[in-house]
Amino acid sequence: MNLGKKLTAEFLGTFWLVLGGCGSAVLAANFGGDGNPLGIGFVGVALAFGLTVLTGAYAFGHISGGHFNPAVSFGLWAGGRFPTRELLPYIVAQVLGGLVAGFILMQIAKGNADFNNNPLAAGNFASNGYGALSPGGYTVAAAFLCEVVLTAFFLIVIMGSTHPRAPAGFAPIAIGLALTLIHLISIPVTNTSVNPARSTAVAFFAGSGAVSQLWLFWVAPILGGLIGGMAYKWLGRED
Amino acid sequence: MNLGKKLTAEFLGTFWLVLGGCGSAVLAANFGGDGNPLGIGFVGVALAFGLTVLTGAYAFGHISGGHFNPAVSFGLWAGGRFPTRELLPYIVAQVLGGLVAGFILMQIAKGNADFNNNPLAAGNFASNGYGALSPGGYTVAAAFLCEVVLTAFFLIVIMGSTHPRAPAGFAPIAIGLALTLIHLISIPVTNTSVNPARSTAVAFFAGSGAVSQLWLFWVAPILGGLIGGMAYKWLGRED
Amino acid sequence: MNLGKKLTAEFLGTFWLVLGGCGSAVLAANFGGDGNPLGIGFVGVALAFGLTVLTGAYAFGHISGGHFNPAVSFGLWAGGRFPTRELLPYIVAQVLGGLVAGFILMQIAKGNADFNNNPLAAGNFASNGYGALSPGGYTVAAAFLCEVVLTAFFLIVIMGSTHPRAPAGFAPIAIGLALTLIHLISIPVTNTSVNPARSTAVAFFAGSGAVSQLWLFWVAPILGGLIGGMAYKWLGRED
Amino acid sequence: MNLGKKLTAEFLGTFWLVLGGCGSAVLAANFGGDGNPLGIGFVGVALAFGLTVLTGAYAFGHISGGHFNPAVSFGLWAGGRFPTRELLPYIVAQVLGGLVAGFILMQIAKGNADFNNNPLAAGNFASNGYGALSPGGYTVAAAFLCEVVLTAFFLIVIMGSTHPRAPAGFAPIAIGLALTLIHLISIPVTNTSVNPARSTAVAFFAGSGAVSQLWLFWVAPILGGLIGGMAYKWLGRED
Repeated sequence: MNLGKKLTAEFLGTFWLVLGGCGSAVLAANFGGDGNPLGIGFVGVALAFGLTVLTGAYAFGHISGGHFNPAVSFGLWAGGRFPTRELLPYIVAQVLGGLVAGFILMQIAKGNADFNNNPLAAGNFASNGYGALSPGGYTVAAAFLCEVVLTAFFLIVIMGSTHPRAPAGFAPIAIGLALTLIHLISIPVTNTSVNPARSTAVAFFAGSGAVSQLWLFWVAPILGGLIGGMAYKWLGRED
Repeated sequence: MNLGKKLTAEFLGTFWLVLGGCGSAVLAANFGGDGNPLGIGFVGVALAFGLTVLTGAYAFGHISGGHFNPAVSFGLWAGGRFPTRELLPYIVAQVLGGLVAGFILMQIAKGNADFNNNPLAAGNFASNGYGALSPGGYTVAAAFLCEVVLTAFFLIVIMGSTHPRAPAGFAPIAIGLALTLIHLISIPVTNTSVNPARSTAVAFFAGSGAVSQLWLFWVAPILGGLIGGMAYKWLGRED
Repeated sequence: MNLGKKLTAEFLGTFWLVLGGCGSAVLAANFGGDGNPLGIGFVGVALAFGLTVLTGAYAFGHISGGHFNPAVSFGLWAGGRFPTRELLPYIVAQVLGGLVAGFILMQIAKGNADFNNNPLAAGNFASNGYGALSPGGYTVAAAFLCEVVLTAFFLIVIMGSTHPRAPAGFAPIAIGLALTLIHLISIPVTNTSVNPARSTAVAFFAGSGAVSQLWLFWVAPILGGLIGGMAYKWLGRED
Repeated sequence: MNLGKKLTAEFLGTFWLVLGGCGSAVLAANFGGDGNPLGIGFVGVALAFGLTVLTGAYAFGHISGGHFNPAVSFGLWAGGRFPTRELLPYIVAQVLGGLVAGFILMQIAKGNADFNNNPLAAGNFASNGYGALSPGGYTVAAAFLCEVVLTAFFLIVIMGSTHPRAPAGFAPIAIGLALTLIHLISIPVTNTSVNPARSTAVAFFAGSGAVSQLWLFWVAPILGGLIGGMAYKWLGRED
C-alpha cells in the first residue's frame, strides 16, 4: 500500500474518531439539560469513542494499520512494530483529520440556536483539561498519572491483541472496546484524551483555556504509549 | 440466489430495522415520562438500531448482501459492488418492508391507552426532521450536513469491513455498531436517518410535517452514500 | 453427545437465562427507587438477557445447540433443524432449569429487608403480563401481536446466523444480541417473554395474576417460533 | 512461555481489572451526585469490569491463559485445565497486581478535592460487602449464595467457551461479557466480587469494615469456582 493511501486512511480514521467521539459528547451527552435521562451520558460517549476505533480499524486497518492517534504510532514504534520514517507523516495526517472533524462538528453544533446563544465556555466542546477544566476538578498530577497509565495499557492491549499468537481478526474489537473502557474510567478526570490528535482537534474551538493545557495531552499520552509499547515488546517476545 | 429471495431478505431486513430501531424509540425510549431513568433513552435506541443491522446482516447477508437501506444500495453501486439492474428492485423491497413495519408498530403502540388518547404530535413516532421537527431544534443546513457526512462514513465502514483484505466474518459487527455510533452522535440533530426507507416508513404515520421534510432524508443520505462509496472505491483499490 | 448431557446443558442454560435476565430485573433495574439513575433500567435488563444467551451459547452450544427456550426448540423443529423425539425432553429440561433459577433468585431477593416487607405485587418478580400486568398497560391484542412478531424474527435470526453459508462462530453474538434488541423494544409491552420457560419460571413466584396470563406466553412465542422457523426454512433453501 | 512472563501477565491483567472495574465505580459511577444521569451507573461499571477481561484476555490470554482471578485459577485447576504447581504463584501475582492498582487508583481519586474532604466511608472505594456494607443491604446468606452461584457459572462459561469444540477465538468475548452480566445482576447484593483478588485490592483502602468481611469474598468465589470447574469437567467430557 502506498504512503498516500495510508495517510488518507489515517486522516479519515482520526476524522471519524473525533467526529464520533467528540460529536456524541457535544451533541448528545447532556441532551435536554441536567437531569434528563434521554441524553447518552458518559456511557454513551464512552461507547461512541470505542466504536469509532472498532469500526475504523475494520475499515482502514488493512490499509494503514488503524492508529488514528499519535500516542499509538509512538507506542507501536517503541514496540518495534512501526517504522521511524512513517512516524511524522502519520502524526501530521492524524492531527489534520482531527482538526477538520472539529471544524465540521462546529458547523453542525452551531445549527442549534441554544449553542449559538451560549458562547463556548472553557472546558466545553469536548475538550480535555485538568484543574478547573477537569470535569470533576482533578489536579494536574492526577490527570497526568491517569493519562500515562491508561495510554500505557491501551498500547498493551493493542500490541497484545495484534500479536501473532492472538486469535486473528478480533483485534479491532479488543482495541475499540479498550478505548470505551478507558473512557468509562476517566471522563471525570480529564474528559479522557489518551490521544493528542483528539485533544488538539477540539482545543482550538474550545477557547484559550483548553489550548494552554494542551501540552499535557501530548506529553502524558505519548509517554504512556512509549511505556506500554516497550513493556509489551519484552512481554510478547518468544524466549 | 434468485432475485425473489434476495428481495424477500431485503424486505424482512428493513422490516426488522424499522420495527426494532423505531419500535424501541416509540415504545421504550421515554418510558414513564420525562425524568424516569428506566426508559432506554438515546443510548438504548442507538443500540437497538445497530443491533437490527448486526443481527440482520448475519441472518440475511449471505442471501441479499444485507443492505436494508437505499443509501447503502446506491453507495455500493457507486463503489462498484452492486449491479445497476438490482438497484430499483432492492429499493422498492426496502421501502415496502419499512412501511409494513411502521404499520405493525402502530398496531402495537395503539395498544397503550396513553398513546391512543394523545393524537400523534409532529415529530413523533420516531420520524426524522429538521428545524421545528428536529429533536434539538437544529437547522436544515446542519441536518443536511450531518446526514451527508454520517452516511458517507457509514458507506466507508461498509466498504472497508467487507473488503477482501479485511478479516472475514466480522463485517456485520462493524457495520451494525457503526449505525449505533451514528445514532449516538446525531439523534438530537435529525433523530438520525442515514436511511431513506427508515424515514419513509414512519413519516406517513407521524403526520404531514414529517412527510413534507422527507425529501431531505432521501437526498442527503443518498448523496452521502454515493460520496462514501466512491471514496472507498479509490482508497481500497490495489495500486 | 448423549441425551443426558444435552438435557443438562439445556437445564443449566435456561437456569442462567432466568437467573441473569430476571435476576438483573428484580435486583438491579430500579435500584434506589424511582428517579435514581444508578439502577440499570431497561437497557441493563435488555443487555443482561442477551448476554445470558450469548455466553450460554458459547458454553453449551456445542453440547445441546443452546436453545434454552421452548419456542426456539419448536421453531428449529419447524425449520427442519431439530428432531421430533428430542422436543419434549428439551422443553421439560428448560422449564425445570428456569423454575430452579426462579427459586434461587427468590432466596437471594429475600435477603433484602425491603423485599421482605413488601409482599410481591402482581406484575413483579420480572413476570410477563398484559393489560393491568403490562409494564406500560398494553392490551392483550398488542401483547399477543408483539410476542408473535418478535419471536418469529428471533427464530429467523437464529436460523440465518447458523446457516451453513453464514460466517462460522458468530451465531452466539447475533442470537444473544437479537434477544437484547427484542428486550429494548418490548419490555414496556409485556416485560418481554419470547420464551415460555422464562415466563413460567417466575410466574409462580409472582402471584396468581401472572399465572392466569401465562397461557399467552406459551401460545404466542411458540406460534411466532413456528412461523419464523418455517419462513427461514423456505428462504434459506438453495434453489 | 516461561513462568516469569506468565506471572507478569497475570499481574498486569489483574491490575487492569481492578483499575478499570473499580476505577470506573469510584471515579465515574455517581458523577455529579445522586440523580445526575451523566454518571455511568451500574450499567457502566458492569460494562467496565467485563471489558477489562475481554481486552485483557485478548492481550494476555496467549501468555498466561488470562485468569486475573484466584477463583478462576482454582476452578480451572478443579476442571483439569491448570497445573497444581502454578496455582499459588498465579494467585500471588493476581493479588499483588490488584493491590498496586488499588494504590494507583487511590492516587488518582485523591486528586479530586471532594474525595479528599470526605473520609472514606465504609463500603466505599468499590469494596465488596454484605449486611450493612451491601449496596442494597442484603444479608450474609444472600451474599454468600449469590457469590457462589455466579462464580460457578462464570467458570462454566470459561470452561465451555474455551472447550476444543467451541468456536476458536471467541472465548474472550464470552468470558468478558459474562463478567458484565454477573455485575448487572449482583452489584446491589455484594457490589459483585466473584474474584478474591479484586476484593482484596480495594478492601485495605476502604477501611476496616471491608477488611473484616473479606473472608466471604475468598471463600464463596473459590467454592463457586471449584463447583463450576468440576461440573463442566463432567459435562464437557466426550463419552
